[in-house]
Amino acid sequence: MIKVGIVGGTGYTGSELARLVLAHPALELACITSRQDAGQPVASQWPQFAARSELRFSAPDPATLTACDLVFFATPHGTAMAMAPGLLEAGVKVVDLSADFRLRSIPEFERWYGMPHTAAELLEEAVYGLPELNRERIRRARLVACPGCYPTATILGFAPLLEHGLLDPRTLVADAKSGVSGAGRKLAMGVLYGEVAENFKAYGVDGHRHLPEIAQVLAECAGAPLGLCFVPHLLPMFRGLQATLYATVTRDPGDLVRLFRERYADHPFIFVHDADGVPETRAVRGSNACHIGLRYFPEQGRVVVFSVIDNLVKGAAGQALQNANLMCGLAEDAGLPGDPFFP
Amino acid sequence: MIKVGIVGGTGYTGSELARLVLAHPALELACITSRQDAGQPVASQWPQFAARSELRFSAPDPATLTACDLVFFATPHGTAMAMAPGLLEAGVKVVDLSADFRLRSIPEFERWYGMPHTAAELLEEAVYGLPELNRERIRRARLVACPGCYPTATILGFAPLLEHGLLDPRTLVADAKSGVSGAGRKLAMGVLYGEVAENFKAYGVDGHRHLPEIAQVLAECAGAPLGLCFVPHLLPMFRGLQATLYATVTRDPGDLVRLFRERYADHPFIFVHDADGVPETRAVRGSNACHIGLRYFPEQGRVVVFSVIDNLVKGAAGQALQNANLMCGLAEDAGLPGDPFFP
Amino acid sequence: MIKVGIVGGTGYTGSELARLVLAHPALELACITSRQDAGQPVASQWPQFAARSELRFSAPDPATLTACDLVFFATPHGTAMAMAPGLLEAGVKVVDLSADFRLRSIPEFERWYGMPHTAAELLEEAVYGLPELNRERIRRARLVACPGCYPTATILGFAPLLEHGLLDPRTLVADAKSGVSGAGRKLAMGVLYGEVAENFKAYGVDGHRHLPEIAQVLAECAGAPLGLCFVPHLLPMFRGLQATLYATVTRDPGDLVRLFRERYADHPFIFVHDADGVPETRAVRGSNACHIGLRYFPEQGRVVVFSVIDNLVKGAAGQALQNANLMCGLAEDAGLPGDPFFP
Amino acid sequence: MIKVGIVGGTGYTGSELARLVLAHPALELACITSRQDAGQPVASQWPQFAARSELRFSAPDPATLTACDLVFFATPHGTAMAMAPGLLEAGVKVVDLSADFRLRSIPEFERWYGMPHTAAELLEEAVYGLPELNRERIRRARLVACPGCYPTATILGFAPLLEHGLLDPRTLVADAKSGVSGAGRKLAMGVLYGEVAENFKAYGVDGHRHLPEIAQVLAECAGAPLGLCFVPHLLPMFRGLQATLYATVTRDPGDLVRLFRERYADHPFIFVHDADGVPETRAVRGSNACHIGLRYFPEQGRVVVFSVIDNLVKGAAGQALQNANLMCGLAEDAGLPGDPFFP
Repeated sequence: MIKVGIVGGTGYTGSELARLVLAHPALELACITSRQDAGQPVASQWPQFAARSELRFSAPDPATLTACDLVFFATPHGTAMAMAPGLLEAGVKVVDLSADFRLRSIPEFERWYGMPHTAAELLEEAVYGLPELNRERIRRARLVACPGCYPTATILGFAPLLEHGLLDPRTLVADAKSGVSGAGRKLAMGVLYGEVAENFKAYGVDGHRHLPEIAQVLAECAGAPLGLCFVPHLLPMFRGLQATLYATVTRDPGDLVRLFRERYADHPFIFVHDADGVPETRAVRGSNACHIGLRYFPEQGRVVVFSVIDNLVKGAAGQALQNANLMCGLAEDAGLPGDPFFP
Repeated sequence: MIKVGIVGGTGYTGSELARLVLAHPALELACITSRQDAGQPVASQWPQFAARSELRFSAPDPATLTACDLVFFATPHGTAMAMAPGLLEAGVKVVDLSADFRLRSIPEFERWYGMPHTAAELLEEAVYGLPELNRERIRRARLVACPGCYPTATILGFAPLLEHGLLDPRTLVADAKSGVSGAGRKLAMGVLYGEVAENFKAYGVDGHRHLPEIAQVLAECAGAPLGLCFVPHLLPMFRGLQATLYATVTRDPGDLVRLFRERYADHPFIFVHDADGVPETRAVRGSNACHIGLRYFPEQGRVVVFSVIDNLVKGAAGQALQNANLMCGLAEDAGLPGDPFFP
Repeated sequence: MIKVGIVGGTGYTGSELARLVLAHPALELACITSRQDAGQPVASQWPQFAARSELRFSAPDPATLTACDLVFFATPHGTAMAMAPGLLEAGVKVVDLSADFRLRSIPEFERWYGMPHTAAELLEEAVYGLPELNRERIRRARLVACPGCYPTATILGFAPLLEHGLLDPRTLVADAKSGVSGAGRKLAMGVLYGEVAENFKAYGVDGHRHLPEIAQVLAECAGAPLGLCFVPHLLPMFRGLQATLYATVTRDPGDLVRLFRERYADHPFIFVHDADGVPETRAVRGSNACHIGLRYFPEQGRVVVFSVIDNLVKGAAGQALQNANLMCGLAEDAGLPGDPFFP
Repeated sequence: MIKVGIVGGTGYTGSELARLVLAHPALELACITSRQDAGQPVASQWPQFAARSELRFSAPDPATLTACDLVFFATPHGTAMAMAPGLLEAGVKVVDLSADFRLRSIPEFERWYGMPHTAAELLEEAVYGLPELNRERIRRARLVACPGCYPTATILGFAPLLEHGLLDPRTLVADAKSGVSGAGRKLAMGVLYGEVAENFKAYGVDGHRHLPEIAQVLAECAGAPLGLCFVPHLLPMFRGLQATLYATVTRDPGDLVRLFRERYADHPFIFVHDADGVPETRAVRGSNACHIGLRYFPEQGRVVVFSVIDNLVKGAAGQALQNANLMCGLAEDAGLPGDPFFP
């Protein structure tokens, strides 16, 4: 069994990762850390582990972590860049779910995250962990930066079109909607039941941290910078994320469904609907799938792409595991075969 | 007191209209009809009227209805066009919340609604009941066609920009999201709790009935036909609708907030947020308000408008009452002054 | 107009009170206080007042408050007992929505609320503000202690039976369920969307602060102490509270519906269902009503009472206004006539 | 692999069973039937199977079903009793999730279900499929009648106390609350989103079909008939069920936690909380666990038991699988080891 550690076990992402690792046939959960709750049962934070009284938080000690084969960081920004260098040096693989290694440009990172980058020397080595774009590099990586949830859905939806030069790069709109779990398990007025339920609104309109990440990756796909308008919205629900993507085409794009199916043919988690299909978030709840629906409106010269994921799975913990599988030479979908949880 | 009748009292729109009429200082609810439940207490359908045992459904008889000063139709498409001619002839004013008199083009109506139009002679007389566009004509009207919920939010958000020629007409995108009450109180799989809660999806992607209505009115605002992309989505909540509107500008639009505030200066139900504000649906729950937020991204040459309403009030029953107030010479906001219902 | 002040405007109860006072025909909102947000628009906390930019929080200064005719305290425990003596001396009527003046026994208060009582001299004068029990005393009161939400529903459901000696006092069970707004607008893990939605649980099982209050009042109704089992539960919703009440009868109780209707005959907010009726929370949403359903199972010798309120209205702000109406010589239902907000 | 069939694949229970069987290491889903949708992809009904296009509904033909080793009936009442005799004769094991074989008394069955019983000869052989009561008999059974969801939670909570004669049999109260999935996936007004969300109510107050089932089994536990008061309520959520159980004790019950832990010591799905613990539905979402919390109030001489399950898993599909495992000689928890699905 491959020993893995989870640094940051008190957030939704960390606990979801624990659920997946505990069900994984080849991974063993060596430790799950919480500085504040070290020594406490994980069940003290997470009722779903009520019956697993043996599962306890440990402190994020280097000794504990270097005994792992692979460590996941499900931490706020700043932790992974502080601890990753030591772990890598000790031969431990690192999968970072935070933003520390996502942006290639240090000034961009420092502008959006408001802190200096303390592990700049690793930025070039770090691989952006979207397996549908970078699978081979991930297989050989020691350090993988998992994409954000909005970037995952948006990039998977736009990439095949941009790779073929089908989109006018000035016309991209990503109207994105996420369940509240994307905001994390934190004490903030905006995530109270009374504020979220039966409400809908945009947020982060004047600049969301996922924008530079999306722009960086899509510009690579397009081979040119893009004029992207990205507007996130908060859904009155817990899990699930949809990006509704709009762009003007440069020419008739032909059979969109075939284009996407060929692009993702050997990627097990991408499901492309038939030409009249529309994805929905409940169809991916709890699974690592990304479901894509496609439309071309010739009279408008415009494509619309619907890209749907579970933000905690393909948008976070599941994708992290997919990356870990690749880094460890396991089957890409090991421990991730489950049908969605619906109803 | 002005006697009003509500034809179609078993839908969400009809019951909301009843709530508003019962609280109105100058209107009297003369009848509320349901062919199927005639004679039954309204409370047999609507628990909120449990204590109003005297309130009973009546059959939609011409005799009952012609005794009213004004009749609202909160019925499926087809009913109002059958009954309106007789009522108008009897001197009764008519406010139709269905689609029967919204589209000017009979072929368009027949294409989208799949039935022949049987009161074509009234189409020219019918006034499109968006007071922020047509207030003076509504004041003099005998027959008003209330806008749909999506058209209300979309038109109010785009109109000031189109009226000033600020938008490239080929670039309009309306990404719209509505609570499930917009689908009505009907026995359909898609509106079950188990299908709606904790789910999000687009629908009506290949053609929603509100598209020709929006296109017709916005083309009038712009003085030219438009290439509009309209994609509705279903929110896991009951009330509330947001249209997130995108378009490329033809020139620097200047101070958007001032533009919108001047446009709607004497329209009591339109609230325009400050430049950094973002509307949300809970802020209009139960009220007849439309809240608008505005952004201009100069590097993209693009505006984004957030337009938010309660689909059952400004998108249906409240707007119907606003129209009735104007038609009856009452204050435009009579019976509609209430603060939103939050928390 | 009667000038009223609201001390504590940042909680759900305070904002609901503001909504009701603003719609009241005889009351004027002279001030709404927040120590922390003094000077800020109320809209900075409450999106439903977005369009009321003139409405601002003030500091809870004695000068401001003594200029009022009546002051509501929608504050945490401890504030009202500190400020009420001065206000009463200045001739201001006081309606306290907190627990400061609910319990007659100072040791009981200090045991359950963990603070010394600093206005013990007022406890005898304070009237328990359940108008269906104490209307005449409330009319003459200067200081009214509004009941808690659970006590309101539980007492209204048990009182008629206890007053007639119909219940074995050792057998009372109150299985109560409340929407999360009862917990207030506070930063606590337990009220996050992710913790409340799609979940159900009991809480406060080993002693809830409303227990001594219920026991005190019901013992007065019964003329003897009671063995009451009170178990509150948290519902995955915002507003609404039901107490399902069980007790063994001492004799055949006869026609329960008639008994309750006679008891509450001249109390406008109590609605007693027919013998086969069952109340539901949506039927009282936003209204000051209490709906009651009744069953007697002769083979078990047991009655079951369903008592339903909106915890923020009849359980808090609405009942406070009902009390204020009585204290000011207004109609008991002035400003409270509204139909429930459903759908 | 053991071939299993699911008769009735269009309900929530049938689809949940499919999810579990597809993940089971020793079972193979040989067929899933729907008379109406025969030949259609299962994904036409269930979006969670969108990517399993090969999974199709078949007609419930005897030939198909007799080729199975075991058949589950997830059908409305009446189907299993029509088809089970033929299947048993052909050597197929049968697990019935409907009520056809739950009640021992034919008159009781016919009174509550309003249809004649057509397989009375099997009633004696059928084993009531609550493994925590009848595990050995289930191991040897050909025909198992799975308990209803309310009976599962209620019986597991009361049984240890009744088996020890600790409860006054006239004092049992079961105040039960269930998510709306218990009502099935059907076109009925009461299960619409607009009727369920943000609402709470009792239902089935004058006689719910699970009452005779609970009474029958608990009387067996107690060795005497009981005076049980059972009141079900509808929660505004999808999955999850809690029974809050009240009873007066005949003597000091001692250490309740130890009593329950000893009773269920070798039953892997029962988790008994510590003395100060309280269960919650999210802690069992998607899992086959039953979580139990316990209180004894000596001054009242009363116990309170909190019994919590996922009504679709331990209350239906999971328990059916647990029974099937036992009938097939597999580990009791084969295919059921999963951690709950939270957050």
